[in-house]
Amino acid sequence: MSKQNNNALFLGPKSENHKFFKEMLNSLMDEHIFWRRDFHPDDKSSISHNEQRSEDFCATEDNIQEALYDLSNKLKTSSMPWFSTRYLGHMNSDILLPAVLGYMAGILYNPNNCAYEGAPATTGMELEVGIQLGIMLGYEPDKTWGHIASGGTVANYEGLWYARNLKSIPLAIKDVAPDMLDGLDEWLLLNLSVERVLELVEQVKTDGLLDSVLKRSVRSIGVNTEKIGKLLVPQSRHYSWDKSVDIFGLGCDNLVPIQVKDDYRMDISCLKSAIDDLVDKKIPILGVVSVVGTTEEGAVDEVHKIVELRKEYEKKGINFYYHIDAAYGGYARTVFLDENSTFIDYDKLIERLNKDNFIDGKVKWPSRNVYEAFKAMPDADSITIDCHKMGYIPYPAGALVVKDKRILDILTYKAAYVEGENDPMLLGPYIMEGSKAGAAAASVWVTHRTVPLNITGYGKIIACSIEAADYFYKCIKEIQPFEAANGRKYTATALTSPDFNVVVFAFNEVGNTDLEKMNELNERIYNRCSYVSGPVYQKKFITSKTILTDHEYGDVPGSFVSKFEIPETEWFRVKKVYVLRACIMSPFLANNTTFKEYWSRFIQIMKDIVGE
Amino acid sequence: MSKQNNNALFLGPKSENHKFFKEMLNSLMDEHIFWRRDFHPDDKSSISHNEQRSEDFCATEDNIQEALYDLSNKLKTSSMPWFSTRYLGHMNSDILLPAVLGYMAGILYNPNNCAYEGAPATTGMELEVGIQLGIMLGYEPDKTWGHIASGGTVANYEGLWYARNLKSIPLAIKDVAPDMLDGLDEWLLLNLSVERVLELVEQVKTDGLLDSVLKRSVRSIGVNTEKIGKLLVPQSRHYSWDKSVDIFGLGCDNLVPIQVKDDYRMDISCLKSAIDDLVDKKIPILGVVSVVGTTEEGAVDEVHKIVELRKEYEKKGINFYYHIDAAYGGYARTVFLDENSTFIDYDKLIERLNKDNFIDGKVKWPSRNVYEAFKAMPDADSITIDCHKMGYIPYPAGALVVKDKRILDILTYKAAYVEGENDPMLLGPYIMEGSKAGAAAASVWVTHRTVPLNITGYGKIIACSIEAADYFYKCIKEIQPFEAANGRKYTATALTSPDFNVVVFAFNEVGNTDLEKMNELNERIYNRCSYVSGPVYQKKFITSKTILTDHEYGDVPGSFVSKFEIPETEWFRVKKVYVLRACIMSPFLANNTTFKEYWSRFIQIMKDIVGE
Repeated sequence: MSKQNNNALFLGPKSENHKFFKEMLNSLMDEHIFWRRDFHPDDKSSISHNEQRSEDFCATEDNIQEALYDLSNKLKTSSMPWFSTRYLGHMNSDILLPAVLGYMAGILYNPNNCAYEGAPATTGMELEVGIQLGIMLGYEPDKTWGHIASGGTVANYEGLWYARNLKSIPLAIKDVAPDMLDGLDEWLLLNLSVERVLELVEQVKTDGLLDSVLKRSVRSIGVNTEKIGKLLVPQSRHYSWDKSVDIFGLGCDNLVPIQVKDDYRMDISCLKSAIDDLVDKKIPILGVVSVVGTTEEGAVDEVHKIVELRKEYEKKGINFYYHIDAAYGGYARTVFLDENSTFIDYDKLIERLNKDNFIDGKVKWPSRNVYEAFKAMPDADSITIDCHKMGYIPYPAGALVVKDKRILDILTYKAAYVEGENDPMLLGPYIMEGSKAGAAAASVWVTHRTVPLNITGYGKIIACSIEAADYFYKCIKEIQPFEAANGRKYTATALTSPDFNVVVFAFNEVGNTDLEKMNELNERIYNRCSYVSGPVYQKKFITSKTILTDHEYGDVPGSFVSKFEIPETEWFRVKKVYVLRACIMSPFLANNTTFKEYWSRFIQIMKDIVGE
Repeated sequence: MSKQNNNALFLGPKSENHKFFKEMLNSLMDEHIFWRRDFHPDDKSSISHNEQRSEDFCATEDNIQEALYDLSNKLKTSSMPWFSTRYLGHMNSDILLPAVLGYMAGILYNPNNCAYEGAPATTGMELEVGIQLGIMLGYEPDKTWGHIASGGTVANYEGLWYARNLKSIPLAIKDVAPDMLDGLDEWLLLNLSVERVLELVEQVKTDGLLDSVLKRSVRSIGVNTEKIGKLLVPQSRHYSWDKSVDIFGLGCDNLVPIQVKDDYRMDISCLKSAIDDLVDKKIPILGVVSVVGTTEEGAVDEVHKIVELRKEYEKKGINFYYHIDAAYGGYARTVFLDENSTFIDYDKLIERLNKDNFIDGKVKWPSRNVYEAFKAMPDADSITIDCHKMGYIPYPAGALVVKDKRILDILTYKAAYVEGENDPMLLGPYIMEGSKAGAAAASVWVTHRTVPLNITGYGKIIACSIEAADYFYKCIKEIQPFEAANGRKYTATALTSPDFNVVVFAFNEVGNTDLEKMNELNERIYNRCSYVSGPVYQKKFITSKTILTDHEYGDVPGSFVSKFEIPETEWFRVKKVYVLRACIMSPFLANNTTFKEYWSRFIQIMKDIVGE
């Protein structure tokens, strides 16, 4: 079998594959055109040739054309050139060609995956994709369930929805069928394991008591914040978690941020202390969230250690829901899977990555910690994963995957007009959203069919991204003070060795010991490398930025500041550091020779900008 | 100026406008191709011609092609033929040609409207579209604000989010700045008007106290169901409202369904009783929701009467939030607007609709009640409106529009990496979703630019839909018992005279007095006219169904049952009636001659199916 050629999978930074793209697009369009014509071929046309030549008709077409060109002009004037390697900012790059075409084809048919009836073709694709993602994340094929959400934010909400409603189930069962939970006091009921609660749900369902139980659960009686408990999240969490506790009625006061270490991974000892502290106070723990690929740093939380910790607490009778926010990093699990979706042994993986040239032998990735984190993912109860990030799919396409689909029973909402005993696949009642594009499912489905969810498919693309990120990181790390156009000397440093493909870095003038001045410098660089200083189409390099503050991270960013010649006291004075952030998703930067050329151009651009 | 020709605005049931469609699509595609090529023209290609001829490359292209054809086959085999007038079921029809092309163009650029930085072109479009919708709904241009959500479900959630968080603000202010609310007890604080609370928010913002207030609001401390109160919704509500009270921590027990009348509009006297009852018990009223275009019946709640009622209660010191769920009917407000977005006087409207032949003079639409309901919409605090329903836009594109944008201050969430003092337009922190497709905004924007939001644009399309629905309704109403293929006689009746463009109807055998038998008949018809009995592509007519039950509607559907020769006792025995439901969105059924032909074919199809 021929190997996947990554370069054939994208339109390309210079539209290199435009012929193939257009050929396929026109073909899909023709398929649709004739699909319409062939539906009851004897039905008459609704629009005559004569009418098409009329003044009104032509004028309306002219209006459409004018508006579309106006749209095109606006899109061209200020859209972000994700496709170019000159763009290293947010989680964007060129997207997969089959994904774009699949989305476009989907739109022509405009299916609505809210209910099977509105999308007999694409509802099945959505659920198929959900299981594919479940398998890729290590879940059991016959137990897992997943679906496409509009994005990771909504997927995170759904994870919290499961966790919150599940927490209230044992108390509800105690009300309805006290014998089932004889001898358990409230504290014990709020500390049953997820597995145990799902068994109980199955039991009450069999006994015909599920409806009564749901009527006593949070879903019906509303939130009692004291009984629902606290949600523990790393400081590095996405801000959707802050929105989520507001939305779900828990309140931000019930969100407990756990300190990260200076590698920006959640500090497990802090997590343990926080749990112990809550247990001492008899405050239930609603759930723990960890992140695989933090938004700001690309850090990978030590999932394996959290899983281990959870097992320890389980022995002590303390249980909580565990959700992984792998919106960004989730697809990287494909790098670890062989053609049978088996998680490859560490040594074999390293050997295969290097031998088959997936990753340059000089790139030491994954570290053992990152490897173990990805390996342990299937112990989580649910996982958020965004197809429109490392899945290289167009927006909008996030996903939520659960370990055990029995959990769906606690959420069901059915409406008469979407109900039917024969409805094989009904999404609306189990998810937050209602009407939703089947086109997104078509896009993900056709892409997964083209690019396998293992090392030979997605893994091969993501490995390129990781390799390029490692090159970029090493170049920043080993940078020698350089003279900019203004004759002054500058240097740079990276925040951390990347767990994945994000490099956070900052410049400083050699000799500068003022953190505010350093922040100003980086802000100036960002402004020059972003929309802030004018249309991005004119820019030579485009990146993103973030500001690490004590409000978010405590004093952890202080250690980064002291990598420069800046005294620690400056951190305590200024309490924030402005940094540049490059999510290196582009598949066109791997290969040492390509990258060397790229880097020398990059440094030249920086010399010009810094020295302005 | 030439008039809009509706037929030029769609691809057409027989792909009649395929040449123009393909020409524009290829043009937009070429624009994108050269946009990439022209970005730093001196940058080298990443993919060589030589590589494109390699075995791996060609094999990868073959894989893509095979997968895309497989997708196309699946789409063609079982997608719903929305485009055909043979489809009269859910809220679907052919969609607008500029909308489809705008979406496709958007996908090529793949903007992310979460933050301006990810979509400098389309974020502006989204906010522009939001204001356009606000103006169309009668809000003041400089006060209103709106945005595109993934759908009406999420827009409804956002409406509840505003209502819930706003309700908690006065109590929070009382904590932080008691002097501002001197002399007001808790009951009075929970009964301040929306306008008054927004003034208070503005005041605390000016005083630099907003953050402290938010920290005492539900957003931070979580839900206290007793203080938040009850949400009053009509029985005819969309089921997203049931999900919403679960999600927002209020619990379904705090959702109060208000009885509908036999026209399926909320019974205002029941609403009044429910409010009085709650006030007597000193239970606060969180909000009232009414529906413009109910999902099942297309009924238009009497918004003007609710607005009047709210004013009466305001005088008594009882206040609540008012949200309109116009997901379906919202765009129909364009029928009432002249070229200056002025709501047209009733008599002038009727005259203009008939004189300019927007609607056949025999069609008596709108009734005075429906007219007044649409007129009163701008008194609501927020409105849900789905572009992907009566906006004829592809999925996903819903929208939420607020009357007074000061309400955004109570929701803001900012993340450092999307923050920036100069960010002119930042969506993420104000909405539920995070990453979101700029393509949806591009689609709506280009379509609004082509099809004005008034009687000459959208109004002209929607008028066709209303006219066809009226024809359909009258044909059902005046149907004579007909002999089916099996030699038996059947008749039909419609549920109500349509407020909008939905016709709900059922068949019965002449002489049958058994409701269960009648239900079986209609279920059999539905099964034959849907995916249930095999691929829809083979079907002669496709529709949707719903089941009206006492659980949802009390005994209201009994009056429909008694329109047949079925005794009232049957309703009390069976408690549910199975009905067919046709949302007549197609613009290709207006014009009496066309419809007559259509109807005779429809009846023939029914004779065959009923008589099988």
